[in-house]
Formats: sequence, structure tokens, C-alpha cells
Amino acid sequence: MARKAPRRTAERILATSLELFNRFGEPNVSTSVISGELRISPGNLYYHYPSKDELVNRLFDLYEHALTELLQASGDVHDVEDAWFFLHSLFELIWQYRFLYRDLNHLLSRNRHLETRFPALLAHKKEALRTVLDHLGEKNPEDALTPAETELMRDAVAASMVVLLTYWLSYEYVLQPRSAMEPENAQDALLRGAYHVMSALLPYLRPEAREHLLGLLRVYLSNP
Amino acid sequence: MARKAPRRTAERILATSLELFNRFGEPNVSTSVISGELRISPGNLYYHYPSKDELVNRLFDLYEHALTELLQASGDVHDVEDAWFFLHSLFELIWQYRFLYRDLNHLLSRNRHLETRFPALLAHKKEALRTVLDHLGEKNPEDALTPAETELMRDAVAASMVVLLTYWLSYEYVLQPRSAMEPENAQDALLRGAYHVMSALLPYLRPEAREHLLGLLRVYLSNP
Repeated sequence: MARKAPRRTAERILATSLELFNRFGEPNVSTSVISGELRISPGNLYYHYPSKDELVNRLFDLYEHALTELLQASGDVHDVEDAWFFLHSLFELIWQYRFLYRDLNHLLSRNRHLETRFPALLAHKKEALRTVLDHLGEKNPEDALTPAETELMRDAVAASMVVLLTYWLSYEYVLQPRSAMEPENAQDALLRGAYHVMSALLPYLRPEAREHLLGLLRVYLSNP
Repeated sequence: MARKAPRRTAERILATSLELFNRFGEPNVSTSVISGELRISPGNLYYHYPSKDELVNRLFDLYEHALTELLQASGDVHDVEDAWFFLHSLFELIWQYRFLYRDLNHLLSRNRHLETRFPALLAHKKEALRTVLDHLGEKNPEDALTPAETELMRDAVAASMVVLLTYWLSYEYVLQPRSAMEPENAQDALLRGAYHVMSALLPYLRPEAREHLLGLLRVYLSNP
């Protein structure tokens, strides 16, 4: 038992940091707030994580690992139900680590680890959404774009979906700074996010997928 | 002449603050950096703006005023060229005050003035984009949505366009933190932003507007 204690403390510190960062924003939470919340000494916290950035980096690594694993599932998205579930799972993961997105630019401007890793994460998201679009999209779009133009247009749609996916929670936060990041708002916020990303996909779907998605959106639209 | 000096100093302080905030991010620029850059004493800066938040608030008020004026032009958008010009002007204004968006959530979490005013700005943007959509959109969408469903769907598209408009530059910043906010990248970044917002509009346009926009996008697509 005694040998397990350090690991358990390290894990408790991570879990508490994540919770506080998510609720109050990383720039507003100091290491002394974290040690106070855990009722451990600052020295004990320092023993496990010598700086706040090490906490941030460790949480980022956990997020990166989980996201990379989830994005691989884009290859298995073959219909609208799969896509809806896939997007909802992505939003759930982003919600779990929402502090990263809440102050993303500020974090990037002073954390080299995040600065070097985040671009690849966004590129990976875009690639996964492009895969979804290719699986569900029209083979021959009605606008009679050339194949090269279709490529570029799908790339544009995938990039727009990444922006929606990445910043939807920030948008909700601006609209309601006092309540948007609280856990009781999670389900509604995630649903609105998935709804808006799916709506962006709608015009590019094959007819049967389009009808299917419209059916799902109608259920949502009748309970907005 | 002597009576004009204080006003000129106040204006120089504002212009320099805006430039420094835009380049380095507001949290990374202290009032002593600003007075150093202007070669004035901290006391002189303090005389005009007793805190950094007063500088931020005054810059926000200027932005709010300019944006409110610009958004009124949405009523005059009647074709695709108008819409393109309107969006490009919006992006140019956002670029001028990009520090507000770069660290928006962080600013909101500790500045009551911005917290209370920003939600209305986003709502106003959404209303303006909804007006553009109504002016250029299909009267009878092919998907045969009911009028109530069409309302809600257009609202979703307008909200997604606001997210793209608001966060496009942040997205570029994440992809290239070292260069995205530098003035020499402005034209390309704004063009990419306008292109992606217009692409989101494309599927909802009347056939003739759709053809027109596709023509414009083709010019862009051939020089991405």
C-alpha cells in the first residue's frame, strides 16, 4: 500500500487540476489553489509537478492520446447515425478537457509543448472529418465541379467543421460566461455543437444520407 | 497647440496599445511595456488611463461602435458581390482589433465591461448574417422543410457563420502561432476566412446566386 501512495497523489493532483482549470480557466488557477483544494502542502505538489506547465502538459498528453484514438474511428463512419455518434463523442472528449480550448491562444503563446503539438491535432481532426465527408458525400456533386475543385471544396467544408468543433464551446462561453462551463450545461452544449457541425455537413450528403440526417435534425429542431 | 497635447498623447497611447496587444496578446503586454514603447513615464500613462482595463475597454468601445455601424450594411446586401465585400469588411475590422478575439475567453473572465457587452455583439452579428441569408437564400428550399423548420435551419447556418467569422483568425493562430498575427499575413488570412464563411452560405443560395458565388470561389480555388 505504501508504495502506491505517490502514484495516487499524482493522479489526484491531475484530476483536481483538470476540474479547477475547466471551471475557472487555467490562467485563473494557481498551484497554491490546487494544493489548497487537495489539502496537501505546496511542497508535496511541487514534488510531483515542479511547475504548473508540467500539469498542463501532462493533461494535454492525456487528451492527445484519447483524441488520436477516437479520430481513428472516422474510418468506421459509414452512415449518418455513425457520424452523429462520432461527433458527439468528439464533443464529449473536448468537454472533458475544455480548459485547453477556453484559453487556447493564451496557452499557446507561452507553452512550447502545446505550441508544437496543437497544429498536428487540428490537422488530424480535419483529416478525420474529411474522411467522414468522403464516406457520406455525393460521388458527383450537382454543381458539376471538376474533381480538383471538389477536392478543394471538401477541404474547405472539413476546415469549417474543425473550426465549429474546436470553438463551439468558446462561442457558448462568450454568450453565457457565468454558466456555460458548468457541468449541468454539458449535455445541451454538446448537443448544440454536434447539431451545428452536422448541419454544415447536410448539403454535401448523398440523397439517402441527407434524408436520414434531416430526420435526425427534425427531432432536434422540435426540441431546440 | 498646448491644449491639444493631452488629447494627442491619449490617442497615441491607444494606438500603441492596440498595436502591442495585437502583436503579443493582451495578457503579455503590461502598462510599463506600453509606456516604454511610447517613451513616456508610467505616471503620464496612468494620468490618461489609470489601469490596463481602461485601455482595453476604450479600445473595445471603438470596436463596438465600428462593428455596429458596419453590421447595419447587412440590409444593403442584395447579391453575392455585396455579400463577399460585406464579409471581407467584417474580417478587416476584426483583424484591426484581433487582440479581443485572440484571448477572448480570458478577457471575459476578468473584465465585467466586456463580459456584459460581448454577447450582444455576437447576437448582432448573427442577426446580420441571417439577414444576408434571407436576402440571398432560396424561397422554397428543396428539402421541403416546413416554414418553422426553415427558420430554425437558417438560424443554425447563421450561428455557424458567426462561429467561423469570430474564430477563423484563432484557428489560423493555432496552426501558425509564430506568424499568424503578423501584419504581412493579414490579406491571406482574411481572404481564407471570407472564403470559408461564403462556402458555408453556398448550399442555401438561390440558383443564380449560387452560380455567381461558384464563379467567385473558382477564382479563389485556382489560387489557394
